[in-house]
Amino acid sequence: MASGEMFDKAETLALRGKLIGPTCRLFFPNDPIKMVRAHGQYMYNEAGEKYLDCINNVAHVGHCHPDVVAAASKQMETINTNSRFLHDNLVAYAQRLAATLPPSLSVFYFVNSGSEANDLAVQLARRYTGNYDVMVMDNGYHGTTALLMDISPYKFKQADSSGKKDWVHVVPAPCTYRKIFEEDNIDLGKAYADEVKKQLGNLKASGKMIAAFLAESLQSCGGQVIPPEGYFQRVIEHVHQAGGVFIADEVQVGFGRVGSSFWAFQLQHGFVPDVVTMGKPMGNGHPLACVVTTAAIASSSSIEYFNTFGGNPVSCAVGLAVLDVLEKEELLKNAKIVGAHLIATLHKLQSRHPIIGDIRGTGLFIGVELVLDRETKEPATAEAQHVIVRLKDERVLLSTDGPARNVLKFKPPMCFTKADADFVTTKLEHILTDIENIGRHGTSDSGIESGIKEPDVSLPGIQENHHSGRKKQRRMADVGHQAKDDFSSINWISHDLASQPQVSNIVK
Amino acid sequence: MASGEMFDKAETLALRGKLIGPTCRLFFPNDPIKMVRAHGQYMYNEAGEKYLDCINNVAHVGHCHPDVVAAASKQMETINTNSRFLHDNLVAYAQRLAATLPPSLSVFYFVNSGSEANDLAVQLARRYTGNYDVMVMDNGYHGTTALLMDISPYKFKQADSSGKKDWVHVVPAPCTYRKIFEEDNIDLGKAYADEVKKQLGNLKASGKMIAAFLAESLQSCGGQVIPPEGYFQRVIEHVHQAGGVFIADEVQVGFGRVGSSFWAFQLQHGFVPDVVTMGKPMGNGHPLACVVTTAAIASSSSIEYFNTFGGNPVSCAVGLAVLDVLEKEELLKNAKIVGAHLIATLHKLQSRHPIIGDIRGTGLFIGVELVLDRETKEPATAEAQHVIVRLKDERVLLSTDGPARNVLKFKPPMCFTKADADFVTTKLEHILTDIENIGRHGTSDSGIESGIKEPDVSLPGIQENHHSGRKKQRRMADVGHQAKDDFSSINWISHDLASQPQVSNIVK
Repeated sequence: MASGEMFDKAETLALRGKLIGPTCRLFFPNDPIKMVRAHGQYMYNEAGEKYLDCINNVAHVGHCHPDVVAAASKQMETINTNSRFLHDNLVAYAQRLAATLPPSLSVFYFVNSGSEANDLAVQLARRYTGNYDVMVMDNGYHGTTALLMDISPYKFKQADSSGKKDWVHVVPAPCTYRKIFEEDNIDLGKAYADEVKKQLGNLKASGKMIAAFLAESLQSCGGQVIPPEGYFQRVIEHVHQAGGVFIADEVQVGFGRVGSSFWAFQLQHGFVPDVVTMGKPMGNGHPLACVVTTAAIASSSSIEYFNTFGGNPVSCAVGLAVLDVLEKEELLKNAKIVGAHLIATLHKLQSRHPIIGDIRGTGLFIGVELVLDRETKEPATAEAQHVIVRLKDERVLLSTDGPARNVLKFKPPMCFTKADADFVTTKLEHILTDIENIGRHGTSDSGIESGIKEPDVSLPGIQENHHSGRKKQRRMADVGHQAKDDFSSINWISHDLASQPQVSNIVK
Repeated sequence: MASGEMFDKAETLALRGKLIGPTCRLFFPNDPIKMVRAHGQYMYNEAGEKYLDCINNVAHVGHCHPDVVAAASKQMETINTNSRFLHDNLVAYAQRLAATLPPSLSVFYFVNSGSEANDLAVQLARRYTGNYDVMVMDNGYHGTTALLMDISPYKFKQADSSGKKDWVHVVPAPCTYRKIFEEDNIDLGKAYADEVKKQLGNLKASGKMIAAFLAESLQSCGGQVIPPEGYFQRVIEHVHQAGGVFIADEVQVGFGRVGSSFWAFQLQHGFVPDVVTMGKPMGNGHPLACVVTTAAIASSSSIEYFNTFGGNPVSCAVGLAVLDVLEKEELLKNAKIVGAHLIATLHKLQSRHPIIGDIRGTGLFIGVELVLDRETKEPATAEAQHVIVRLKDERVLLSTDGPARNVLKFKPPMCFTKADADFVTTKLEHILTDIENIGRHGTSDSGIESGIKEPDVSLPGIQENHHSGRKKQRRMADVGHQAKDDFSSINWISHDLASQPQVSNIVK
């Protein structure tokens, strides 16, 4: 066993199968990775093998950043108590965050997770507006509480879920690749916003009002959807006219990931949400999240909000250290430069590989959508799964997402370099070439003779509309079996550990 | 300013009023305390003044325990990532917790707060049973998510709340002091359990089933209610017969606080809940919480549960260190011995001070209920508030709770000593004597000539039934003005910082 290990890998896995909720899934359940050490954009397994991490957006300024660790350690040995006592860290941190936001977003609530943040945001909206209903984007995911499961199409559309509640209203994701409109050359920002307006009008006609329109500034689990310019600016007008507030979920995409601005909502020129929620990258792995809103919304309720750990001096010290590192190491600039380089390289790949249907993103938030046919845009789901399994063998961590799980998703630590980008794109091109050779000749240059086998994995539920126009002869595997399975923010091949053998049968 | 301070106290307070949600309340808002350092059972303000902490049950093994800090620091610099990778800490911690629990409670879900734990527990119960409704104890409080606000009478009975939902069912708290039964010498455990049976019968008759009965093993915010022996054993039978599961909320009372057992539910002989939730003391201040349940309940859903921070290696390292300290320092034994000593001393005070109506508790979870009259049991709410304000001036942190906020609540760090207990009871007796002198003569031995003034605070909403039989001449203040105010798990005198002057006008 490696230094520091308590159990060998097989024993860790066996204990996990016995002791941990079976719905808490592993990456690569057939051959999961045991990570024992991490630094910057690299993670190391128990054998000391180094993985390039392209997915852990939580380790925002790099795994185990020494400045963040030092700040946490120092504060932990001094005082860590609840926010019913005065402490400088709480207000200093709020002050620093306020400086990144439009002036109207000035009142902070500190919590422990993006789920707590989104749940509280909806509660604030309900109290402020007096309304109950919530409008969300299709395929959106907002967290794990009962309320958030109810308003996340990503969850409630699963077979095992209780389905959509009548107070939840879903508008199309404003996707510029899979457009819902027949016409070309239309103003997509306006067209998609008109869909919101139309639904709000229908609701009004039936006597309903919404408390909130809740959407990620860039849709993450939904498949890296970047809304067209002008969309949010129009949506917020419609939402206000309908008596609701606009909640921008920056849990996955905030804190400079997009490179050109600190918050992803700022990509939409002049747009200012009524509430912003933040989480994942905020504490570089420490449980820290936040809701910020306007003074008017904050003062609309008198019911005390006490969060035991929220805003404690240690969490705030960690949050402050993350902001310091972002500045000191100019990580927004890095995200912008490295992200642009990665996107440019991916476009070169696209010119050589028809399977790449779309590349979209900004900074270090990038999606690469794989399709079987550029015209029909049929999702290359199995191929996308194959890519991430192959990359894992090459010690690169990448994930897929989107309703058809066919979008390769880059969201690495912000210290990711051009060399890292080149490393992964070189590997990726090799794998795509192999896939094309199999599609063309039933063989690959990696020596697989009989084509790519069906991976021994349960694939997620795929939406019906993505199956139309399927070209069976080009598919790597028939997706959709065990389709009741459900994948969260990072949707890797996974299944119930407790009930499935842990034998790897993945094509290599 | 003290070393390490960024702002002087007035500036911290001003920034807080501007930047932090006004419903996030301070202890003693008229004269809040700025804490800059803490160790063991002591906290220190910016002037270096030392406070004895009788209330911070989160700092379970003592503020800033060096073993816990060291474990966190070491793990933070090694790796901190999500539970989709294998890591030993997760399974080692689950294994250690399992050893404290009955064998049927064997499947763990790690989360970041008691709120996340209770919310998930109800979701699990709903999926397992297929039912939706929830039954809770009157005055119960279970957390901050939308779901938990809906099922916490402590919250939804507040004037500003949206009230009780029709899927929420409330049974009487099984209080042995304020009994709901006329008869003497009855089996209270059976009698209170029969109330649950009766309500479940009524629900069944109207075609309703419950998903869960959710209760704290010992009711904390509800006023330190200790259920009579035999209560939970009978309730779980009734709940099972009605198709529901029993969720024991140990967020406030678990991890050995009761002294004689590791979990408070174990005080009820042979009782085994279906689900147990844990939180506050679990990480000694680090955001760490958990749901444990049976294999049957855990395997009843296939919807993935992914909690970004839940069960990360740092949280688990902290949790393991807390368990180690509990063992190494024999803190359960300490809680039992010191708790018994404190209760014995309080009983001596009770024999001399008629205002002490009831003393109840076990280990270091103790409530002292103050009443204006031992026969009518009219709550001495203002007196209880006065006690905690006076104790604060004596640098002792104590709080009040219960629906009438007249229960003094002891829940100190587990390293609390007999000397600490003697220190606070000596101060308490002096204050009670003063109060009695004022009641008797309109003056006190602290030199207040004209009786005790109305404190410049907003007092919490008091339930109507506690006002019956009020003896006006003996009350210190007319409670109930600004009664829309709402107080959470520790209910100190507090009000909206943003809208109220911060001038202290508290009687000393």
